[in-house]
Amino acid sequence: MFQSKLFTKSKKESPADELSRNAQLLIRAGYIYKEMAGAYAYLPLGLRVISKIKSIISEEMDAIGGQEILMTALQRKELWEVTDRWNDENVDVWFKSELKGGQKVGLGWSHEEPVSEMMKQYIHSYKDLPLYVYQFQTKFRNELRSKSGILRGREFVMKDMYSYCKDADQHNVFYKSVIDAYINVFNRVGLSDYVYITSASGGAFTEFSHEFQAISEAGEDTIYVDKSKKVAVNDEVYNEKTLKDLGLNEKDLEKVTSIEVGNIFDFGKMKSEQLGLSFTKEDGNSEYVHLGSYGIGVTRLMGTIVELFNDEKGIIWPDSVAPFKVHLIGLNLDNADVLKKVNDAYDKFQKAGIEVLFDDREMSAGGKFADSDLIGVPYRVVVSAKTGDKVEVKRRGESESALVSLDNLISDIK
Amino acid sequence: MFQSKLFTKSKKESPADELSRNAQLLIRAGYIYKEMAGAYAYLPLGLRVISKIKSIISEEMDAIGGQEILMTALQRKELWEVTDRWNDENVDVWFKSELKGGQKVGLGWSHEEPVSEMMKQYIHSYKDLPLYVYQFQTKFRNELRSKSGILRGREFVMKDMYSYCKDADQHNVFYKSVIDAYINVFNRVGLSDYVYITSASGGAFTEFSHEFQAISEAGEDTIYVDKSKKVAVNDEVYNEKTLKDLGLNEKDLEKVTSIEVGNIFDFGKMKSEQLGLSFTKEDGNSEYVHLGSYGIGVTRLMGTIVELFNDEKGIIWPDSVAPFKVHLIGLNLDNADVLKKVNDAYDKFQKAGIEVLFDDREMSAGGKFADSDLIGVPYRVVVSAKTGDKVEVKRRGESESALVSLDNLISDIK
Repeated sequence: MFQSKLFTKSKKESPADELSRNAQLLIRAGYIYKEMAGAYAYLPLGLRVISKIKSIISEEMDAIGGQEILMTALQRKELWEVTDRWNDENVDVWFKSELKGGQKVGLGWSHEEPVSEMMKQYIHSYKDLPLYVYQFQTKFRNELRSKSGILRGREFVMKDMYSYCKDADQHNVFYKSVIDAYINVFNRVGLSDYVYITSASGGAFTEFSHEFQAISEAGEDTIYVDKSKKVAVNDEVYNEKTLKDLGLNEKDLEKVTSIEVGNIFDFGKMKSEQLGLSFTKEDGNSEYVHLGSYGIGVTRLMGTIVELFNDEKGIIWPDSVAPFKVHLIGLNLDNADVLKKVNDAYDKFQKAGIEVLFDDREMSAGGKFADSDLIGVPYRVVVSAKTGDKVEVKRRGESESALVSLDNLISDIK
Repeated sequence: MFQSKLFTKSKKESPADELSRNAQLLIRAGYIYKEMAGAYAYLPLGLRVISKIKSIISEEMDAIGGQEILMTALQRKELWEVTDRWNDENVDVWFKSELKGGQKVGLGWSHEEPVSEMMKQYIHSYKDLPLYVYQFQTKFRNELRSKSGILRGREFVMKDMYSYCKDADQHNVFYKSVIDAYINVFNRVGLSDYVYITSASGGAFTEFSHEFQAISEAGEDTIYVDKSKKVAVNDEVYNEKTLKDLGLNEKDLEKVTSIEVGNIFDFGKMKSEQLGLSFTKEDGNSEYVHLGSYGIGVTRLMGTIVELFNDEKGIIWPDSVAPFKVHLIGLNLDNADVLKKVNDAYDKFQKAGIEVLFDDREMSAGGKFADSDLIGVPYRVVVSAKTGDKVEVKRRGESESALVSLDNLISDIK
């Protein structure tokens, strides 16, 4: 992509009311635009990152048998009353509105109820189970405060998955496969050193649920991490009994602040009972379906990556989620020889299938380098009057650059 | 994909309150699920069709220089008051809600205002123009009635594009390129014989806007079509002056019912003046930006295709938007030889990159054929004890089948 065609431009300043590091950098670099506190638009660079993250998640969900769907944001009051989650006293994040006819509707902040209600049409027999569906959907949560950029949105993109199983044993097998899939996701987006599977409150049905917490000062959670065992305990269930149950030792634990990037939850048969979602067992008797619920905040994950990978100059994207692999920078473009070389380099990257942002703008070298550092593409490749038959390559986040042949660089990157 | 793994199952009946042909078929075949009137969930088969349509639209929008973004559904009252489109008397399709702090918000039914407001950050000089952005977004429209299935939704997916130009000349060049791109889209999704570019009311700024109308009894519009000239006039502007202006003759026109599948609109400088979106011209003076707005209802387009391509047995998808290219049906699967053959065929289709739905279920031949006709995949390929070394292929919508070699079929389809 030609940077001269990109409508966004980098900014020296982010909005005065924007306090979070992730949104400050993403706004300045042109990834997002703040519509209101907690609601951000995604611009071309930002959508590319979202798309990379979604692809990684999709691959991992498909690999464990997930089928993609897309439920509606509009929710019927009557359905959520059945499970007693319509009342503002029980769920305090609803956005509510009403149809022209006066019927009350809400905007989905989660989707256990509508997906389970729908499954009454498709689940009849044990032969229909297990069954796993997921979606990428815009969720709406009417948060009282929203000051963490894209870490906590009033409107945000979430991957939520729901599993329907015939019993606890069948559920537990899938639950474990989701843990593995989630670990793969967080590893693949570059967070392997930061994310810990964390035991947290299990609510009404199970002793513990599991969260995936990324250690970051920008977070809102407090966890106790055992770094050698790669596990953690959420502050909310941190006590002697929990440590004993989990086989953890207080002296091995470190108290840290963290961001919840994923959670998985065992609903048992509770919700199916409430909604009347049952099936016929092998023995002909009727039984309620066992429900599990699994979430990853896609936009929150993007914000977490920015919080963890940046320096004073800008963002440092992991390769797997960067909007482009290469930032090609042409200098001395009034020199016809250089212009030809940099255009040739652009074509070669394109032909090799390497995503490249080409800074073809009329601007000082210093301005281009500053923008490049802010945007944070993994490889900065400079073609100028000084680079001769080679190109100058520098990894974002490293200080040393090197003169290399373009062909060698391309085969290295591929 | 193995049909035995697909959680949806075909139904003999659609909901009693579902009056539209498109939703009846799509629900029965397992493409969509009705959450409430005008709000449908998209199931695995349905999402595949949506994804095909979106890819076609994206390619055409990218080809004319469109840059993809994603604005927010949540809208600020204050912004829409500036253009006098917040008031329910002026815009009667708002869903409104409020933030915890009491500030009123609405759900976006269109996005001229927020995109233009955002552009104040990015458009300063004539050098920044022209500029085109588009998005695929869930729109919310609080329709009084919603009885047309996915043709008119309270919640639906729309591709909307906005152009920003320095003057009418620059605008007109792009406007014409959008007409061509839209024609490409409608041709590519299989509607070339049905869609007519239609002159309609231009509102405050221009004499005419342009709609793309697909002839169908399921529509809500009335147009007058000149089939030889491939143009039409909307009933709302059908009069002597219009015919004269457009060089049309009453005797060449046929009055038909139609579905509006796309529209393009010239806002002139009106909205930019209201919002204060201006730029510095070549001569140093300030001028307001010329805005154009262009929409295609993605889910409505899917519904239109179903309305136009179906028979008493089910849907007949055009190849370009079908969820799969091939519906492979295995019969006599208790015969190990047949089972091996059909599994081999599945592998061969997969390896050839041909999307295939494999009916591997234990079910009668009649049941499988009925499901296949309902789902409407273009090629039905049967492997049974009778097909020997060949496979039986039938195009959906045709009655004749033929025994052919699998390799020949694969090379034909590719």
